[in-house]
Amino acid sequence: MSDYDNSPYSRREAPLDLASVFLGPKGENADVFERLLLEAFRDHVFWRRNYHPEDGFRVVESEKHQPGYENSISTLSQELMGLLGELKAGVPFFSPRYIGHMTSDLTMASMIGYFATMLYNPNNVASEASPVTTRMELEVAAQLARMIGYEPSRHWGHLTSGGTVANYEALWVARNVKYLPVAVRWAAEQMEMKNLSVRLPDGTAAGLDELDLWRLLNVAPADALDLAAAFRDRVGDAYQAVHAMAAHSLEGMGYQEFGRRLAQVYGDALGPAVVLVPSTAHYSWEKICRSLGIGGAQLIHVPVDKRFRMDPSALEDTLRTRAEKKQPVIACVSVIGTTEESAVDRLDQIADVRDRLARELGIGFYLHADAAWGGYAASLTRNPDGSRRVYEEVLRDYSPEVWPEEGVYNGLCAMERTDSVTIDPHKLGFIPYPAGAVSFRDGRSRDLVAVEAPYLFHRGASEWGYIGRFIFEGSKPGAAAASVWMSHKALPLDARGYGKLIGETARGALVLHRRLSAGDWGEFRVVPLPTPDMNIVCFAVGHPTLATLEDTNDFVSRIYGAMSVSDARSARTLDYFVTKTELRQPEYGDSAMPTVESLGFSREDYHRAGAVAVIRCTVMDPFLASGRGNVDFIGGFARTLRTVFEQELAVRP
Amino acid sequence: MSDYDNSPYSRREAPLDLASVFLGPKGENADVFERLLLEAFRDHVFWRRNYHPEDGFRVVESEKHQPGYENSISTLSQELMGLLGELKAGVPFFSPRYIGHMTSDLTMASMIGYFATMLYNPNNVASEASPVTTRMELEVAAQLARMIGYEPSRHWGHLTSGGTVANYEALWVARNVKYLPVAVRWAAEQMEMKNLSVRLPDGTAAGLDELDLWRLLNVAPADALDLAAAFRDRVGDAYQAVHAMAAHSLEGMGYQEFGRRLAQVYGDALGPAVVLVPSTAHYSWEKICRSLGIGGAQLIHVPVDKRFRMDPSALEDTLRTRAEKKQPVIACVSVIGTTEESAVDRLDQIADVRDRLARELGIGFYLHADAAWGGYAASLTRNPDGSRRVYEEVLRDYSPEVWPEEGVYNGLCAMERTDSVTIDPHKLGFIPYPAGAVSFRDGRSRDLVAVEAPYLFHRGASEWGYIGRFIFEGSKPGAAAASVWMSHKALPLDARGYGKLIGETARGALVLHRRLSAGDWGEFRVVPLPTPDMNIVCFAVGHPTLATLEDTNDFVSRIYGAMSVSDARSARTLDYFVTKTELRQPEYGDSAMPTVESLGFSREDYHRAGAVAVIRCTVMDPFLASGRGNVDFIGGFARTLRTVFEQELAVRP
Repeated sequence: MSDYDNSPYSRREAPLDLASVFLGPKGENADVFERLLLEAFRDHVFWRRNYHPEDGFRVVESEKHQPGYENSISTLSQELMGLLGELKAGVPFFSPRYIGHMTSDLTMASMIGYFATMLYNPNNVASEASPVTTRMELEVAAQLARMIGYEPSRHWGHLTSGGTVANYEALWVARNVKYLPVAVRWAAEQMEMKNLSVRLPDGTAAGLDELDLWRLLNVAPADALDLAAAFRDRVGDAYQAVHAMAAHSLEGMGYQEFGRRLAQVYGDALGPAVVLVPSTAHYSWEKICRSLGIGGAQLIHVPVDKRFRMDPSALEDTLRTRAEKKQPVIACVSVIGTTEESAVDRLDQIADVRDRLARELGIGFYLHADAAWGGYAASLTRNPDGSRRVYEEVLRDYSPEVWPEEGVYNGLCAMERTDSVTIDPHKLGFIPYPAGAVSFRDGRSRDLVAVEAPYLFHRGASEWGYIGRFIFEGSKPGAAAASVWMSHKALPLDARGYGKLIGETARGALVLHRRLSAGDWGEFRVVPLPTPDMNIVCFAVGHPTLATLEDTNDFVSRIYGAMSVSDARSARTLDYFVTKTELRQPEYGDSAMPTVESLGFSREDYHRAGAVAVIRCTVMDPFLASGRGNVDFIGGFARTLRTVFEQELAVRP
Repeated sequence: MSDYDNSPYSRREAPLDLASVFLGPKGENADVFERLLLEAFRDHVFWRRNYHPEDGFRVVESEKHQPGYENSISTLSQELMGLLGELKAGVPFFSPRYIGHMTSDLTMASMIGYFATMLYNPNNVASEASPVTTRMELEVAAQLARMIGYEPSRHWGHLTSGGTVANYEALWVARNVKYLPVAVRWAAEQMEMKNLSVRLPDGTAAGLDELDLWRLLNVAPADALDLAAAFRDRVGDAYQAVHAMAAHSLEGMGYQEFGRRLAQVYGDALGPAVVLVPSTAHYSWEKICRSLGIGGAQLIHVPVDKRFRMDPSALEDTLRTRAEKKQPVIACVSVIGTTEESAVDRLDQIADVRDRLARELGIGFYLHADAAWGGYAASLTRNPDGSRRVYEEVLRDYSPEVWPEEGVYNGLCAMERTDSVTIDPHKLGFIPYPAGAVSFRDGRSRDLVAVEAPYLFHRGASEWGYIGRFIFEGSKPGAAAASVWMSHKALPLDARGYGKLIGETARGALVLHRRLSAGDWGEFRVVPLPTPDMNIVCFAVGHPTLATLEDTNDFVSRIYGAMSVSDARSARTLDYFVTKTELRQPEYGDSAMPTVESLGFSREDYHRAGAVAVIRCTVMDPFLASGRGNVDFIGGFARTLRTVFEQELAVRP
């Protein structure tokens, strides 16, 4: 087997039984879990005991009967009982009855791996505080990069606390690389260095000192990094080169001084630089643009099509308009698995637009995939040896469903054409919080956010000695790295492992979608959004007596209220759990019109109401539609829905 | 007992035995830990089993003998054995022999609380996904705020993945509040609103439209928030008001447009806004200033005194110079417990400087305490009922040591005078990663980083319904909140609990410091830095044959290499563990001169070498100097040091 399969011990002749991977809704695998938990704990205790055994004991048994000790242990035991009591007011994410938020049961491998490692408390800020788990973090980052299709020897990637920080770091890199050619130009001028050459988006080369500001701000990311490398080579001393670039860079000077100098040198020519996201992008992109100083107003929402995927022709229009206005584009963000609909952008077509307009208009920008939700689905395109499965093979895996659509497959495969990707193991990796991840195609990206000059780095320390230097966050749990590492052992990142798991969740979503579309709802009108790309099913609900879209939206809110936890409603009283979202008119535009019309409302109604509310069901249980066990949860959910509809209609104000 | 004591079950007549709080270096408390671990696990399994018991089982016993199941469990078991084997190459942080980085054994309460809650997998982004642990997060944030001395009913605080993100969020708020009066001014002009009044730093009031840019950028944070509130009141509609301010704000417009408009309206008058930190500040402050767009060059290092505390008179000089140059100060950051020396800034004197120069020069800025390391030490200033202990009482607690110094006590108490504080539970809270925390004195601060208008918030959801809206990060582990919550139950945030624990670590550091100062080092010269404020001891090492400071620094590096883990040196081969740092001349300036001179070198030597290297010992074991058990670890450490000195001198190149 190739390097792609990282499990030396695995025997995978028989297809994996996914029920063996989780603790199970009835704790079916509690015996295994408990055995391994105890094994991990005792193993750790004996490790402590065997470390300098001559050191003797700190607490001897007789001291344990002193009041200062006994009281403390009593408090601990009692407070734990209190905590366990409180936790039972929590939400049964493990149950097939929970199809609300993006939360579910976790892999046993990830939980046991987390706990076993937490006992050792490694800190992945530096390998000196985590010799084992820093290596694991880099291993899982390399696994994710291979799944994406990045060249393992050139990429850079690591874990983060979650998708927000991963996306933040990617856009931070994108911002810095956008202004890098300006910094190199100014640094070169100061050093009186001439004849630096840079590759332009159309493939031609030009002298750096010949470029106007517009062209400086349209050098493609890889070319900007090549330019910086050429500058370093010419300077000779890497330390001096890095400091010279930093002194002339946006991140070194700050926006205020950098902007002042741009205006002095180039006049007030260009509009503010923008970031493009699909209308479906997560709200955290606004936080990110605001805090990076790019500005919330410079976050441009590109319209999506009726499948909630970024519309490539709308993207092209947006790029043409920005080019005409001479507004540089810092980055285009594509979403692989939207938070609301699990829509997978046609990233292949988006990358085509980028490549075509680079040649035609000479524009260059950074392309990032926010695959926080959908990234793990790329595993279904991989054979155990890491090669790509062709579409027909993938299709066969999920028969009799016709899934994934070819466009979804192509979108997943095209992640390899991006500059960076965010993937959250704590979402479709079924791994405990906190575990986000970011991967960069070009490992040199990390120098753009590094806090110390690289030369310091080679003073004795190995390459992986101090990864914290290249990462926004500082201290972070080595346990999270071990957790992901263990889970990837149990479920490899290919069609047999995560691919199978995620495919089964999509199968459940498709069956649910059909059931909702074809159900007997009496006078109620259940309007599902179009077939989901992955595993999130949304639907609106109308009724003849709900005369306006506003009333209809309120009714959906009431259904949601009756099927979710709140101050007033505890989990114990609920049979099924859903969540809710709104397709807001300013962002969703025409893409929501089929839903609005199926409810019997018009474009004017939609504009007036401002949004159409939908119930949202995230399917993370791979057995929802399997017939395993003796309960038809989809049927039960439909019956509960109907009851709730009627109850809420009866009591509405 | 007052509300401050949050443990309904506690019986605290006998002084707490700190040995009962940890698993122990020999796993002395393994029996208790194992019992509670199993309790938590089984309790969770039976919760699952009792949830809709009619749902039946997903895996029945007979299926467990199928190859697809058996192989999977075998893989899991085998990979866990592999993980456990790998982890043993980790570092024995639990041992008294480990006095390197800021890592140690953790409280049992925090580990069991973390594990118990991870089984439920709550996500604190929204209370709907974490009805229990979101409440716990807000509870522990309120406990930290009370310890600091903030008004509980007015503060806002939450957990983060760590100190970097906590500091980042604080400076993000500081940046936005700095430019808030400009945004209100422009929003008011657009609405043709007149006669808004604002309080100036000297205590007088002025009309907002009368102020020049310099005065607009010197409104104190609380006064800027009052101004925004007054604007909202005048507008009437909160939604409209918030949107109007956002449209004219730095975070809304972005630095590029905001700067352009500032220049248009006010000309090119003011220098770039700066952030002040002591020379000892953590390197992450540079990351933070770069990424927020403030610029690395706008991070001003204020000199420290010979105890490595920010020099208040140097701060005053810096502020006067900046005021003369008309450079606004976004924030001044004070460090409570430096990463390298555990120095506690005289925050009381820093706050005095702020207040005096506000009156005298009319300058206003944000004051933040980076108490990531030292924050928990404020617990020693608190009685169980939450009242302050006077200094003499505190002194008595740690007798016969004369600790803390009165200046340290005053610095800790003065945290209540700041605008925000970062405190990391995963440092001196002895809680697993990831657990940072940030507290804001004024809860309205959070509106400056919120992504949706507050009005949405009150549509049915309770105040704590969706805290993710006010927080940089999104998904985060509810387990971390439960972990901190449990640990605060076991060890209250007062002199009996965390105060006692931290005081005992300081006692160990003081004994170690004396031992190093008075040891028999033969021809070696061991030069400790001055008595630490808390629990980190650093020392340089010289020898007559080490003729230059460069040679001496290299020798210290070799000692460090011999007493730390690396690719080449596994933990198993080491008897004691230390780490190393450098007092770099550009940052440390004169504060390191006593050390340099004691080594027999001059100011010129220091400038030439660029730094003086020191061994750094972080004492987190509360029993290091207690005589508990039968090993004298400080004596053993000194003997090992002497041996290492001789070995390394003999083999040096």
